[in-house]
Amino acid sequence: MRYVSFVKDGKSLLGVREGNDIRVIGDESLESLLARGVDLATYGRDHAGTEVVSADDVSFLPPLTRPPKIVCIGLNYADHTRESKYEQPDYPTIFFRVHTSLIAHQQPMIRPTASDSLDFEGEIAAVLGKGGRYISKDDALSCVAGYSLFNDGSVREYQFKSPQWTVGKNFDGTGAFGPDLVTADELPAGAKGLWLETRLNGEVVQAASTDDMVFDIASLISILSEAITLEPGDVIVTGTPSGIGWARTPRLLMKHGDVCEVSVEGIGTLRNEIVDEQAA
Amino acid sequence: MRYVSFVKDGKSLLGVREGNDIRVIGDESLESLLARGVDLATYGRDHAGTEVVSADDVSFLPPLTRPPKIVCIGLNYADHTRESKYEQPDYPTIFFRVHTSLIAHQQPMIRPTASDSLDFEGEIAAVLGKGGRYISKDDALSCVAGYSLFNDGSVREYQFKSPQWTVGKNFDGTGAFGPDLVTADELPAGAKGLWLETRLNGEVVQAASTDDMVFDIASLISILSEAITLEPGDVIVTGTPSGIGWARTPRLLMKHGDVCEVSVEGIGTLRNEIVDEQAA
Repeated sequence: MRYVSFVKDGKSLLGVREGNDIRVIGDESLESLLARGVDLATYGRDHAGTEVVSADDVSFLPPLTRPPKIVCIGLNYADHTRESKYEQPDYPTIFFRVHTSLIAHQQPMIRPTASDSLDFEGEIAAVLGKGGRYISKDDALSCVAGYSLFNDGSVREYQFKSPQWTVGKNFDGTGAFGPDLVTADELPAGAKGLWLETRLNGEVVQAASTDDMVFDIASLISILSEAITLEPGDVIVTGTPSGIGWARTPRLLMKHGDVCEVSVEGIGTLRNEIVDEQAA
Repeated sequence: MRYVSFVKDGKSLLGVREGNDIRVIGDESLESLLARGVDLATYGRDHAGTEVVSADDVSFLPPLTRPPKIVCIGLNYADHTRESKYEQPDYPTIFFRVHTSLIAHQQPMIRPTASDSLDFEGEIAAVLGKGGRYISKDDALSCVAGYSLFNDGSVREYQFKSPQWTVGKNFDGTGAFGPDLVTADELPAGAKGLWLETRLNGEVVQAASTDDMVFDIASLISILSEAITLEPGDVIVTGTPSGIGWARTPRLLMKHGDVCEVSVEGIGTLRNEIVDEQAA
């Protein structure tokens, strides 16, 4: 089942996507549904109404606009760690995003006035349906409600202004998330073996199998939960493969008018046009 | 005016502190009051009722349990940057905490099973009453609703397991916050010139003036807002002075039964006993 959050006639709604149609469920958010423990694999079937709108006639929202946490994983594909000139750590590299950085499918990704160093990072995102502490690796995938796509837009100059990447990863309008939340039952366990591709103006700039993650999704959930209470609605953004623009010679940075797409087979395509902040 | 959040007879309440007495306002949280733009400098006077409880008879909560963001600043006192073996960056070092790591005054600070490397970091926290983007340094202090205390309990081994400190700064039960939110009108502008002291079992382990911050609070607000939309209720934890246990020879780490206190003149004292996770 594929869920989409969107605005139609000024109202924020949740729906189930069927091709280019969206069957409206109502105005309860995914955050709220997950917090009260509903099973998304069946909820949409049982609760969608008869109203159908076209995906062409809505403004998408991120699947979740205010997840309890947005946990991002860095250096989680070995080729990307190498191009980034880091040693591969034997523990996940973790940073947080905050909700103010999120944008939806088809919303402009903002190249800030402060820097022209906006770079792409195509990723797969796992959304938790169940949380807890000390989740075993064996139980971890039963905590995943579904998967979506993420473009972890990174303002590289700011990412490296201090020892912590946080600000470069949290400019307003840089974290693209969506469009569909695909429930876990529709994908291979742990979203393994899926082909991920990032395209800039139609040209493939990143391509890898999700099998290449250093820490797979079950491991990430289990390891994170040794330190931090995970909650329903938490989003784990699982890291990007090699090919980022900042590591290329010459550097390839995104500019006003560019179109960046992230696709993962079985999940869909997340598309954003780059817009200069002054023009947004 | 000094606000405290607390639980009494199973109910979460907000009150105004008068010495050891707390005059009850009601059950609306500071998050909610700040989000709707009330002026805390006068709200408590106008809305406190006649019910008074003793601070000895309540369980404190963090002033805000779920701030929109908890923005922590690293390397913000030059002596601490030196003891930490970093070059002083010319831009603030930023990381986030998440709400699941927060504890209140007098709650146990948890030394996790995963590591015995729990360290103290006494800090002052600014809570925003107003947010926005591109806040000028001149306007920044008018955005601060008040100040509180923070002990940024850090699990050092995990802080340095990867290039990002996040996990070492986000173990459950390590971020002590409170007890009082003191409104900005009761303190020097920008909480300048206040003496900050951290004591472990009564012995002073950190001591500095808030004047020693590399980036003062007005600068932090202004610089952060060049990248990130700040919101009412956001907490900025402004960094710790030198004296941390991890940088000492031999290392001084906190253990079960220790008592750690953070005091800042005019704000108060935040006190937490260290408790092993197994015993909590």
